[in-house]
Amino acid sequence: MHSSFPSIPSVLLNLQVSLPPLLADAAPESGSLVLAGVLLSLVVVYFASKIGGEICVRIELPAVLGELLAGVIVGVSALHLLVFPSVDLDASQSMVMQLLQMAMQVDLPTLTTTFEVQSEVLSTLAELGVIILLFEIGLESDLKELIRVGPQAAIVAVVGVTVPFALGTAGLMLIFNVPSIPAIFAGAALTATSIGITARVLAEIQRLNSKEGQIIIGAAVLDDVLGIIVLAVVASLAKTGQVEIGNVIYLVVSAGVFLVGSLWLGLLLNPFLVSLVNELKTRGQLLITALILTFVLADIAVVIQLEAILGAFAAGLILAETEKRTELQEQIAPISDMFVPVFFVVVGARTDLSVLNPFVPSNREGLIMASFLVLVAIVGKVVTGFTVFGQPQLNRLAIGVGMIPRGEVGLVFASFGATTGVLPESLQAAVIVMVILTTFLAPPLLRIVFSKSDEVSQLVSEPAGMAAASDGMGAAEILDSSVIQHDD
Amino acid sequence: MHSSFPSIPSVLLNLQVSLPPLLADAAPESGSLVLAGVLLSLVVVYFASKIGGEICVRIELPAVLGELLAGVIVGVSALHLLVFPSVDLDASQSMVMQLLQMAMQVDLPTLTTTFEVQSEVLSTLAELGVIILLFEIGLESDLKELIRVGPQAAIVAVVGVTVPFALGTAGLMLIFNVPSIPAIFAGAALTATSIGITARVLAEIQRLNSKEGQIIIGAAVLDDVLGIIVLAVVASLAKTGQVEIGNVIYLVVSAGVFLVGSLWLGLLLNPFLVSLVNELKTRGQLLITALILTFVLADIAVVIQLEAILGAFAAGLILAETEKRTELQEQIAPISDMFVPVFFVVVGARTDLSVLNPFVPSNREGLIMASFLVLVAIVGKVVTGFTVFGQPQLNRLAIGVGMIPRGEVGLVFASFGATTGVLPESLQAAVIVMVILTTFLAPPLLRIVFSKSDEVSQLVSEPAGMAAASDGMGAAEILDSSVIQHDD
Repeated sequence: MHSSFPSIPSVLLNLQVSLPPLLADAAPESGSLVLAGVLLSLVVVYFASKIGGEICVRIELPAVLGELLAGVIVGVSALHLLVFPSVDLDASQSMVMQLLQMAMQVDLPTLTTTFEVQSEVLSTLAELGVIILLFEIGLESDLKELIRVGPQAAIVAVVGVTVPFALGTAGLMLIFNVPSIPAIFAGAALTATSIGITARVLAEIQRLNSKEGQIIIGAAVLDDVLGIIVLAVVASLAKTGQVEIGNVIYLVVSAGVFLVGSLWLGLLLNPFLVSLVNELKTRGQLLITALILTFVLADIAVVIQLEAILGAFAAGLILAETEKRTELQEQIAPISDMFVPVFFVVVGARTDLSVLNPFVPSNREGLIMASFLVLVAIVGKVVTGFTVFGQPQLNRLAIGVGMIPRGEVGLVFASFGATTGVLPESLQAAVIVMVILTTFLAPPLLRIVFSKSDEVSQLVSEPAGMAAASDGMGAAEILDSSVIQHDD
Repeated sequence: MHSSFPSIPSVLLNLQVSLPPLLADAAPESGSLVLAGVLLSLVVVYFASKIGGEICVRIELPAVLGELLAGVIVGVSALHLLVFPSVDLDASQSMVMQLLQMAMQVDLPTLTTTFEVQSEVLSTLAELGVIILLFEIGLESDLKELIRVGPQAAIVAVVGVTVPFALGTAGLMLIFNVPSIPAIFAGAALTATSIGITARVLAEIQRLNSKEGQIIIGAAVLDDVLGIIVLAVVASLAKTGQVEIGNVIYLVVSAGVFLVGSLWLGLLLNPFLVSLVNELKTRGQLLITALILTFVLADIAVVIQLEAILGAFAAGLILAETEKRTELQEQIAPISDMFVPVFFVVVGARTDLSVLNPFVPSNREGLIMASFLVLVAIVGKVVTGFTVFGQPQLNRLAIGVGMIPRGEVGLVFASFGATTGVLPESLQAAVIVMVILTTFLAPPLLRIVFSKSDEVSQLVSEPAGMAAASDGMGAAEILDSSVIQHDD
């Protein structure tokens, strides 16, 4: 459009000259560059999520895998449309920033600041995405069923932490002669489970409310707590060479008190919440009340050094026990549609696949260790399903497969290892490869193992007290992207 | 909780020592302080919006006024729960940051960065709020009706810009002996109209689709374009002492080309969009397609130096012409419930009422000029209703009153004046007082003038081609907080 007006370049220049004081100010107008960057990035996210999701659904793969892969394509590994600042990456490598620079002729310091701020905004939107996803998963879960499968879930979680950790650490020390501290660190990275990816796949294939689904969710939540404890242990080990017992006790106690306390208090206050919502007269009374509870619990979880998603999951579990459940599921669905893809596309976009390139000689040592770690990562989680007792007809393979994806939790370990210098470069690359492969392999694998035992699993899980599954508009049903078309 | 564990303080200290490298990194975990701040701030926003809204609705005032006032109470004027960084305000004055500091023992530089980043995130969420509000308003508007009232809306907009500008500038120069450039600047601040506040009130009292409502919306949109042009003119005048004609021509042409072009292209592509949505199989296909269109148009508007809300409004108008309108209104409603209050509470929170304190001697000169500006601001917009021709039974007073609130647009002028040093302090305070009073007076006034002529207005507007108003689930109806209770 610009080229059709001969006088535009000088006009634009004039605008440039006159606008900076406005943009530098704290008025609502100040963020217009940031806003332009965020809007453009969200357009990239939504295009990527829809294109990736639609392709995967058409070839019988979970939509979430398509979102992750599309994220990789628009991210740091390929198109650089959606990238985040790091020591090796500044605004000049962000296509979105380059487009803004071309369109608005921003100076370099402003562009750098804009890049950093818009990246923080997108990260926060992605975190809100996984918070809303876990709230939705909690809302769909059945607290009684979760408590019933609690012992099995606890075993799955503990075995799924100890087996990969022991095998990984021992293997790295014995086979690859890695010194003990980096070996322990890499072993610790093997313990994580990405609840977001598994939960989304379970919802898509309508298995969230199966007995297997509830064991996986329960175990993944416990795994999240265990992962935080393991990280704290490893961190103090890396720093001081010894474990701070006080630290570990604090985390165990605070996680226990938080989960039990928030659920107990929440269930106690539920009747009050419902009658409050019924009293309110302004628009969005139910949704805003639910968001307040969710954000308060998520915030408390962050403040006591746990994960925000634990609080969001607890809030969902609490509100699932009220009469407002179905109404809330309907209202949260569009919000989830808007926020959740941001999380998955961002996880994909942050994943740097260049460590997988075997033509780069320095990658090779890492790739060999990576093959070992991937093997341990899969075997160490798959065995967990077979530790479940007293449930002869359970799909044990599905439980183990459900625990495989390391996702964002594994990346935290990898980047923590990178910043503290604990992990040598090759081992760090190996951990990243392990995280990538487990994350991207789990969704199709989970779909396969569940579809193989389809009839058996249905027969077993149906009579086992599945009150939630019989709801008319369960989130699992709403979530199932391959079956429901809202518009038909 | 901390005090019940004697060993906690040292444990927390250990955690502090071991966590900073993790927090400083670009991993998903890095933003956990920012996330904690954003979640806590959103809890403040939602509590404020509900308490303020519920009180106002119960005393027959618009809910949006309650959200604005509650924003003032939690904001910089009183509780400091929701404040934004400026030259006079750092993290130590933010209650949210102080709470985080107490709970997580953050060092000062980290706290300062967190404060800045979380404020940018909240500002962006607020801007997304007004973008979604304007999309919803566009979706509820009737393009044919808007085009039909176009000439009247244009007159209302032009008169509503020129009369307050001429009266204000002349009065300041003649009565208060203000030099010409600051007088012109203050006069320019009188020209704005806050479309967000008026549109929300119209929706609440179910008058969005009345003929008056559509004239106000049309005029407010044009006023937004005129406001940008006036700001550019005044900015170059303040900088160079003369007006850049090229600038003005560029803005007029680009605004015209953008609005006409996006609507024309959008309507042309509508059948393609609808069949695309029908082809998609993944969850949220309609909503995400709508968000992509909205964000693309909003982004183009920002890039060509217009306002994002113009693009969002155009996107709403375009999609209102498709068969998906009702379905989209239902899906956007919870998203609007979540985002829109952030905008209004943040506008209130940014408003510094200390300039209204007559006991501070330095405020007095400003307050006298403010009385004059408020008078001009109200009279200058109220007369616009009486310039509408050929519509004998129209509620002319309501049209004029609907144009009164200056809101966030007026604040941009005030803060621009502050940063460029064009406005002397007393005049700047006077402009801020004018913005505050017009913004807070308009919602109750609008409600009064519409309710007085209730029957007349209904009789006139009903036969005038109100296709939109007959929709079962119009946004006006959904938006109306005093009538609908979702849960009954």
